[in-house]
Amino acid sequence: MLDVSLLGTAGMMPLPYRFLTSLMARYNGSDLLIDCGEGTQVAIAKKGWSPHSIDTLLLTHYHADHVSGLPGLLLSMANGEKTSPLSIYGPKGLSRIVNSLLVIAPDLPFEIVLHEINTPTLEFSSKGFDIKAFRVNHNVTCYGYSLSVKRLPKFDLEAAKKKNIPLKFWNALQHGQDCTDDDGTVYTPSMVMGPPRKGLKVTYTTDTRPCQSIIDNAAESDLFICEGMYAEKEKKDNAKKNKHMMFSEAAALARDASVKELWLTHFSPSLMGADKYMGGIRKIFKNTHLGKDGLTKELKFEDEEE
Amino acid sequence: MLDVSLLGTAGMMPLPYRFLTSLMARYNGSDLLIDCGEGTQVAIAKKGWSPHSIDTLLLTHYHADHVSGLPGLLLSMANGEKTSPLSIYGPKGLSRIVNSLLVIAPDLPFEIVLHEINTPTLEFSSKGFDIKAFRVNHNVTCYGYSLSVKRLPKFDLEAAKKKNIPLKFWNALQHGQDCTDDDGTVYTPSMVMGPPRKGLKVTYTTDTRPCQSIIDNAAESDLFICEGMYAEKEKKDNAKKNKHMMFSEAAALARDASVKELWLTHFSPSLMGADKYMGGIRKIFKNTHLGKDGLTKELKFEDEEE
Repeated sequence: MLDVSLLGTAGMMPLPYRFLTSLMARYNGSDLLIDCGEGTQVAIAKKGWSPHSIDTLLLTHYHADHVSGLPGLLLSMANGEKTSPLSIYGPKGLSRIVNSLLVIAPDLPFEIVLHEINTPTLEFSSKGFDIKAFRVNHNVTCYGYSLSVKRLPKFDLEAAKKKNIPLKFWNALQHGQDCTDDDGTVYTPSMVMGPPRKGLKVTYTTDTRPCQSIIDNAAESDLFICEGMYAEKEKKDNAKKNKHMMFSEAAALARDASVKELWLTHFSPSLMGADKYMGGIRKIFKNTHLGKDGLTKELKFEDEEE
Repeated sequence: MLDVSLLGTAGMMPLPYRFLTSLMARYNGSDLLIDCGEGTQVAIAKKGWSPHSIDTLLLTHYHADHVSGLPGLLLSMANGEKTSPLSIYGPKGLSRIVNSLLVIAPDLPFEIVLHEINTPTLEFSSKGFDIKAFRVNHNVTCYGYSLSVKRLPKFDLEAAKKKNIPLKFWNALQHGQDCTDDDGTVYTPSMVMGPPRKGLKVTYTTDTRPCQSIIDNAAESDLFICEGMYAEKEKKDNAKKNKHMMFSEAAALARDASVKELWLTHFSPSLMGADKYMGGIRKIFKNTHLGKDGLTKELKFEDEEE
């Protein structure tokens, strides 16, 4: 089970009733955060979660509304006695940005490991998440991220028994390891594991114009979280000029990428009464939801039990 | 009339129900802010005020809970089309701190003027406020600030008439300027102005142990805003070790400085049910108030009309 929470939905500036856009994902004891604007640590606390267990932070870009909460988050991790390392990924300039912000958060009791992304795409794994960063189209270098979690094939109990595979090897085989018994018999995972099973995929993109890399990388996502800076038709020129997106453009991306569900976020401070636009948007992509601070979903594997 | 608002009351970290401690003062069209932790711009918006008109920012020290909101505040000023300069005062290291934080708030459309304080005390004026910075006792260099606003002496209408002072000079004389008529007659303010009148004084001190400089500089303040990190007696050792203050210590300072009113703030995240300590605290200094986010007071000059 993969828990995903949209901590905030504001773009540009935090508002009294709207935290800045960021996403937290929790899977198998590991927590991952995408973006960390001013107040993100408060949004985490409000959700009832804790920053201490965050192992991975992915930054889309370095506009303040996506990174200004970092020093406070790091200090709260330190106050929470975090000692395990934190990996931070982000575009070119990562070490300059993080080291500058560390002037007000010195002497942390845990290691920060920086990974600068310098290629159009980058695939990596971090604490159970398979991640793909892909460049999008903003007025500074900006990345979207797809998070995938694998699902193990089903263990075939009948096959294990029929093939007389010793019980002591079952767990290792289930986790993909070959095993050799004292008499030299070799057992391989393929002897007891069923066919591949579908994992889960979540894609997050903000601040960007629509572009092909989003369609390619969000393809078949179980959940697609996408900016929708503007809803009003007359804001289309603003969207183009500021390299942001209309609700309708996000919905078209969701449709073209064949995702299962779309959450809109990163709303302009000027956006009011967004609900009234949703009827039209759902004609483009039916399963579109207007993001709300703290919107959370437990994504389940296919046929996973409650 | 001087408006003062305690924007937040949290120490160390912002909480979902408590903004970080900072103070905003408004006098005669000029706004002044003391400290700017994560979320201060949201607290200002929640109060219904705006960051655009802030001319002066006073920083007590550079722990993140007092300065991490600066990049976001600056960007919101820029989005609000501020073009007038912002003066920032703070201890040694000011330019290193501000310039580091500016990596995520580049290209501002207004000038930032930095004033580093390197002496135990410093007196200066900024946009109608007479300010005194005084060093306090924390684990890094930290300053308290007293804000004073002068009150003009009363204009003596009868004297002006009796002395046949031309009407065209009344306003200039009222604002302290000598005036010379075409025939060479010199008029001076002392001819028409009454005796000096008491102004208003507000003193703000956080993060510090109690010390003599606080008593000296808070003396006779109309309002004294002081940290009270801990209320519980068993936290006294923590207060000493972390260079913070007990409620009771703040109340004793208020008493010894003969202030009119005390607001406690900068509460430990662990502090719960602070109300129950106030009975004992008011035995030390009667007019003590437990700070609350957004607590605001209009300070009036003596005999000033509603």
